[in-house]
Amino acid sequence: MVLLRESVGHALRCARTDQSRTLRDVARDARVSLGYLSEVERGQKEASSELLNSICEALGLSLATLMHEVTLNISAHEVTKLAVVDAA
Amino acid sequence: MVLLRESVGHALRCARTDQSRTLRDVARDARVSLGYLSEVERGQKEASSELLNSICEALGLSLATLMHEVTLNISAHEVTKLAVVDAA
Repeated sequence: MVLLRESVGHALRCARTDQSRTLRDVARDARVSLGYLSEVERGQKEASSELLNSICEALGLSLATLMHEVTLNISAHEVTKLAVVDAA
Repeated sequence: MVLLRESVGHALRCARTDQSRTLRDVARDARVSLGYLSEVERGQKEASSELLNSICEALGLSLATLMHEVTLNISAHEVTKLAVVDAA
């Protein structure tokens, strides 16, 4: 199974780069350290629910919008995995 | 904003009770402690992504299915909050 923190990180990074913003910019607005945000985006750290909300707010995203993207990403991974298993 | 861990906990508890299973049963199958699962279900502890996958597997749920339920739950909270703000 794909890891939730990897999909969350991917969705956060996509949202940030779609807005052409830097890690430093979003980290400052979210009041988290740049290193923390970077680790979360790379799926290396579990974001606490409180800090995830701060990061969403800094990106002007609702948590529901982010989680919708995350769900689509996880679904795509699961479909790909099933296709690989079927082909084997 | 609603907290992600609360929505995840709610969705896990709903899935377990829909299957008429006990905390002890699911915790054993997921190889997590009963106390850990109970805290996760009550939204008091952030589940690590690895243990969340174990719990999903124990419940026979894909992570995408769980996150779809979580997204619906968060959306409902956000709509309710907007309605309250509008009415104020």
